[in-house]
Amino acid sequence: MAIPKKIRGVLSPVLTPFNTDYSVAKERFVEHCRTLLDCNVGLAIFGTNSEANSLSASEKMGLMDLLVENGVPADRMMPGTGCCSISDSIELTRHAVGLGCAGTLMLPPFFYKGVSDEGLYRNYATIIDAVASEQLRIYLYHIPHVTQVGITYGLIERLLRDYPGNIAGIKDSSGDWNNTLGMLEQFQPHGFDVFAGSEPFLLQTMRHGGAGCISATANVNAHAISHLYDTWQEESADRQQAALNVVRAAFQKFPMIPAMKSAIAAHRQDPEWSTLRPPLVELTEEQSRQLQEALAAISFKPNTPRPF
Amino acid sequence: MAIPKKIRGVLSPVLTPFNTDYSVAKERFVEHCRTLLDCNVGLAIFGTNSEANSLSASEKMGLMDLLVENGVPADRMMPGTGCCSISDSIELTRHAVGLGCAGTLMLPPFFYKGVSDEGLYRNYATIIDAVASEQLRIYLYHIPHVTQVGITYGLIERLLRDYPGNIAGIKDSSGDWNNTLGMLEQFQPHGFDVFAGSEPFLLQTMRHGGAGCISATANVNAHAISHLYDTWQEESADRQQAALNVVRAAFQKFPMIPAMKSAIAAHRQDPEWSTLRPPLVELTEEQSRQLQEALAAISFKPNTPRPF
Repeated sequence: MAIPKKIRGVLSPVLTPFNTDYSVAKERFVEHCRTLLDCNVGLAIFGTNSEANSLSASEKMGLMDLLVENGVPADRMMPGTGCCSISDSIELTRHAVGLGCAGTLMLPPFFYKGVSDEGLYRNYATIIDAVASEQLRIYLYHIPHVTQVGITYGLIERLLRDYPGNIAGIKDSSGDWNNTLGMLEQFQPHGFDVFAGSEPFLLQTMRHGGAGCISATANVNAHAISHLYDTWQEESADRQQAALNVVRAAFQKFPMIPAMKSAIAAHRQDPEWSTLRPPLVELTEEQSRQLQEALAAISFKPNTPRPF
Repeated sequence: MAIPKKIRGVLSPVLTPFNTDYSVAKERFVEHCRTLLDCNVGLAIFGTNSEANSLSASEKMGLMDLLVENGVPADRMMPGTGCCSISDSIELTRHAVGLGCAGTLMLPPFFYKGVSDEGLYRNYATIIDAVASEQLRIYLYHIPHVTQVGITYGLIERLLRDYPGNIAGIKDSSGDWNNTLGMLEQFQPHGFDVFAGSEPFLLQTMRHGGAGCISATANVNAHAISHLYDTWQEESADRQQAALNVVRAAFQKFPMIPAMKSAIAAHRQDPEWSTLRPPLVELTEEQSRQLQEALAAISFKPNTPRPF
């Protein structure tokens, strides 16, 4: 099998809709994925904003299969496959590679704190050796405020040296532009694709040679974020970035995952969309009302095309 | 089925031995469990020191079955069944109850930080409702320095009120005696069994009406810890507690899990025993040597009976 071009651009950690009994709402999930694809947003299913760690490994494999069976192209999918358990990580990663996914986004194991780079290296190296496929492209996932376990430059360097074909890039959700910039300068020139962890950093990332962004807000503002990616070299780019930031800020006043689910539920008049698996909880009624007001004030409707 | 007496005393978060290819070393696991049982130490398999979160749900269910098939009494087992994913937690808990386990030790979901008590309540309530068994006894697991997600008194109160038959107790690994003492005073009188999270707090816990301890070090110092539990009202108790603390301190100079595995490997002349799954790593040769010296200096050998 020929190795396809690497995925770039805008991806979304796809929200996972649940029924009120906490089972996955499969039809809503497929439909939401199609909406994102229509906006040219790739599918980073099983990210932080997907409540991925609230799903079992078998649920995740079932959902990957469901998408492919429903005609979603695997080469637009970058499932999260990094778990605490290396056996889960291997099984999920192998499954994703078997389906032909564009890549996998891999958290470090995050239960133990204060672990060594040697331990994290062994985690990734063992997975790569076990999956043993040229098709495997791993995107490291650096989100230290959640995991408390970060991806250091030293770890990237060692992995890139030993597995240049499999270590494909990173999502930097540190929120620290200097960290992203350092990676863009040190690793992007070696073909290691740096994705901003959210769209407020998209334009800067593109201007420094990066690969795009993987952002929560792409679940609701897919068109506009994707448009900035397509036109970042045009004169309108700074104005577009500013407009994206306004939408992001409106959501960030609330817990992000419940807020995005609430906005979609309201927009679709489908209250069940707002369901989250424990330990997350939905917005209160008052918070939902405030969010609706804030979105109305900026004339924002989820994933509705507007003039740019 | 009659509801049996609640498990009390000393339990160990049983170390999980691995082969060098990181598969579980099943024979060593069964043998280690038998050693602990011979010392009257109960089996809190799949605890923090078991590298439980480095095992998949299916591996854990397979190991529970393995023990039962090998004649290990389920009423001496308290498997850890609390996962990030509520679907995993339900499946594991149901499996443990089906085997007749004495209880399950349940971490809160630990990926998301800053979650609400409402979200944690829903996690436990959903699991209890789904398993729907009078045989289910949940021991909450409070280990905030690792999970970053703690169990508050308010959460315990609400769970005890709504599920008095299923919420059986807690392991307090906060390391904060005042937190344990508060639970002993507030909840133990209602039949909520408070276990100290390590044996340095065993004697104090017993003197305040607690249920025992669930301690890492019981993997290596099983006889002596168990003996203190049996004789805590005798004159020798303070002296025994002091002796236990000396052994604990020797191990705590090193990362605990690698140190205990190293000590057992050396004692059994079985180097493979020292293997850990990533992201944990074994002691360096120098650390192993230092540990051996420290243990020799206090004439300590893992799980070897000595005069008390």
